[in-house]
Amino acid sequence: MSYFSYLQCSKCGKEYSKDEPHNLCECGGPLLVRYDLHSIKENVDKNLFKTREKGLFRFKELLPIEDEKNIVSLGEGDTPILKADSLGEKIGAENLYIKDEGLNPTGTFKSRGAAVGVSKAKELGIKTIAMPTAGNAGGAWSAYSAKAGIELIVAMPKDAPDLAKKEAFIYGSRTYLVKGLISDAGKIIAKGVKKYGWFDAATLKEPYRIEGKKTMGLELAEYFNWEFPDAILYPTGGGVGIIGIWKAFKELKELGWIKDKIPKLIAVQAEGCNPIVKAFNENSEASEFYTGANTIAGGIRVPKALGDFIVLDAVRQSKGTAIEVKDSEIIESLNLLAKTEGLFVAPEGATLVAAADKLIKNGFLKSTDKIVLLNTGCGLKYANLVEEELQVLEIDADI
Amino acid sequence: MSYFSYLQCSKCGKEYSKDEPHNLCECGGPLLVRYDLHSIKENVDKNLFKTREKGLFRFKELLPIEDEKNIVSLGEGDTPILKADSLGEKIGAENLYIKDEGLNPTGTFKSRGAAVGVSKAKELGIKTIAMPTAGNAGGAWSAYSAKAGIELIVAMPKDAPDLAKKEAFIYGSRTYLVKGLISDAGKIIAKGVKKYGWFDAATLKEPYRIEGKKTMGLELAEYFNWEFPDAILYPTGGGVGIIGIWKAFKELKELGWIKDKIPKLIAVQAEGCNPIVKAFNENSEASEFYTGANTIAGGIRVPKALGDFIVLDAVRQSKGTAIEVKDSEIIESLNLLAKTEGLFVAPEGATLVAAADKLIKNGFLKSTDKIVLLNTGCGLKYANLVEEELQVLEIDADI
Repeated sequence: MSYFSYLQCSKCGKEYSKDEPHNLCECGGPLLVRYDLHSIKENVDKNLFKTREKGLFRFKELLPIEDEKNIVSLGEGDTPILKADSLGEKIGAENLYIKDEGLNPTGTFKSRGAAVGVSKAKELGIKTIAMPTAGNAGGAWSAYSAKAGIELIVAMPKDAPDLAKKEAFIYGSRTYLVKGLISDAGKIIAKGVKKYGWFDAATLKEPYRIEGKKTMGLELAEYFNWEFPDAILYPTGGGVGIIGIWKAFKELKELGWIKDKIPKLIAVQAEGCNPIVKAFNENSEASEFYTGANTIAGGIRVPKALGDFIVLDAVRQSKGTAIEVKDSEIIESLNLLAKTEGLFVAPEGATLVAAADKLIKNGFLKSTDKIVLLNTGCGLKYANLVEEELQVLEIDADI
Repeated sequence: MSYFSYLQCSKCGKEYSKDEPHNLCECGGPLLVRYDLHSIKENVDKNLFKTREKGLFRFKELLPIEDEKNIVSLGEGDTPILKADSLGEKIGAENLYIKDEGLNPTGTFKSRGAAVGVSKAKELGIKTIAMPTAGNAGGAWSAYSAKAGIELIVAMPKDAPDLAKKEAFIYGSRTYLVKGLISDAGKIIAKGVKKYGWFDAATLKEPYRIEGKKTMGLELAEYFNWEFPDAILYPTGGGVGIIGIWKAFKELKELGWIKDKIPKLIAVQAEGCNPIVKAFNENSEASEFYTGANTIAGGIRVPKALGDFIVLDAVRQSKGTAIEVKDSEIIESLNLLAKTEGLFVAPEGATLVAAADKLIKNGFLKSTDKIVLLNTGCGLKYANLVEEELQVLEIDADI
């Protein structure tokens, strides 16, 4: 089923065997999954995927799980791709689409990474996983670990969304709140990993989460009849989604399954935490730690991403860009999206509306471009951002 | 595409034309959609549905939308059906499945009814819809109405879940909170409907919501290779889901598409609001208004359902039963489901775990029966039911 071949360092190219647990390369670089694409090309028909039961595991040849019985699934993937004509009209985009990752289990795209990551952990016989999280990944990994019967230890910022805390708790993870940022939570987890030998599943420290995120790219390519759209906007914190989508593009290109168009990958950040945007504008290969990170979009409040150099490389190679938006624009976008398209999205996803608007106005994107906004989560997790004012009626009132 | 033929009263059998808006029959009975099943049998292959793009509208021949351009979709339907072996082991059910409706847009099965209801309203040229809601239907109809550009007026109990209020508000519905139950909200809406000529979309007062819910039954039949499972447990408030699933069963049977097994339909209610259970036990044709309704499962806090007689008939005809569970059992079930299956569900859905446990223990269900728990919503909307206790760490802490 899987054509998983070996692991390879994204920095120095060193190869690792696929048969035991690995984290980072000796050189500190994140490891990537490599497939025997040559054999896939010979043996697999790309039209096969559509005939299988829905969900991201229908792309099993391009995923690292080798024995189907290890798959831990809650129904993730194959999220809707919706044409957004009303919103498109407001911002002057004639071919605007929203891929709504909020319909994944636990309400965010994090389920994709967790489904593949936890399945592979199960396959490798891992008993305890530990990870820092901004909130949503912790919820997702908690759900899949519960289903898999794997113990999960999670540390998240004390000011993570309430719902993320409740999720980790109800799924039975051992959960800690840290008086700091996700980077601080990461340091505490790293110490625990060293002390107790837990498997470290921090972003990019395990190689399989990317493969789950990659399926967003596979689904997009398939949906648009094996041609990528002109531009994909993505709210960028750790940036694994961009890395995954770019990996999908490169694998599909090598397989000869897609037409030649390169999708512009656009990293969107918040003004209050924009290390990737800064690095992009300064032509740097990597980002610098962003001090004083502050935005309502907690999922992209990542001061320094481990894979920043891969994200920047993907954005540049794809002829994309990096752009920031203000928190006030996020709130406006959140409201606009709900009222025009009937979508109540996460603030991270809402950033994309403001960003697309700017990029059309400044000419970076054409009004006729096929543009995909990749909304990463559902708004239900961010209810505090909605301040409703509703009229209260007596039982016998008239309206 | 649609084989919609006419509307027919569920009480007196009177027929109505499909070409203009209708609410209840003159006799007060809810109207049901009738199809030209004979022509479907002749012209449609049941294996066709699987080849179409996912979502409930792939069953278009058995839905009332006549022109595809009127479809208002946010990606609803085709929710996961998950084998629940860990939970099954706990309660002694070897073939236990959970259909997780929480992965619909707006987080509940209400999206199915809203997708079909709002699409049909658009097709009929309706400009303003009004409805009472316990909360979740208001959220769903608000989202679809926003997408359709239809005005929605919603009234819900003042103590409806916060998230339902925020949803109605952010989607731009005109939203009222009523100091009473859904039945009180219904009276206020009914007065407004009379005064302003809005289209009344209260449960069963418009005929199309059932058709959306029906697709749960179609999906189940298709999933189990065109054979219904032995039992379907359903949290019953208004009961439209049971009515819809039973309608699916009867239509599929008439089409000759399914094997003979009749699925036992099991209506599950809360001890604090159990009018259907009472009526079932007393062998009554209809339920009595339940005074003092009180349960944490707000979606099934319906003191008197308009379609109670159809629900009771379906439960009896299917050789099912009606059963109540305590609020404390709901909370236990919620936790059990999260920890064993990685599913954080709505309290309405959690009732089913306790109910299945009782019905296996008392012998009504066999341990080998193929049992489906139809979870109607995601737990994210009921975060207040989770009281997390988490350890807070300083930045430099060790764990």
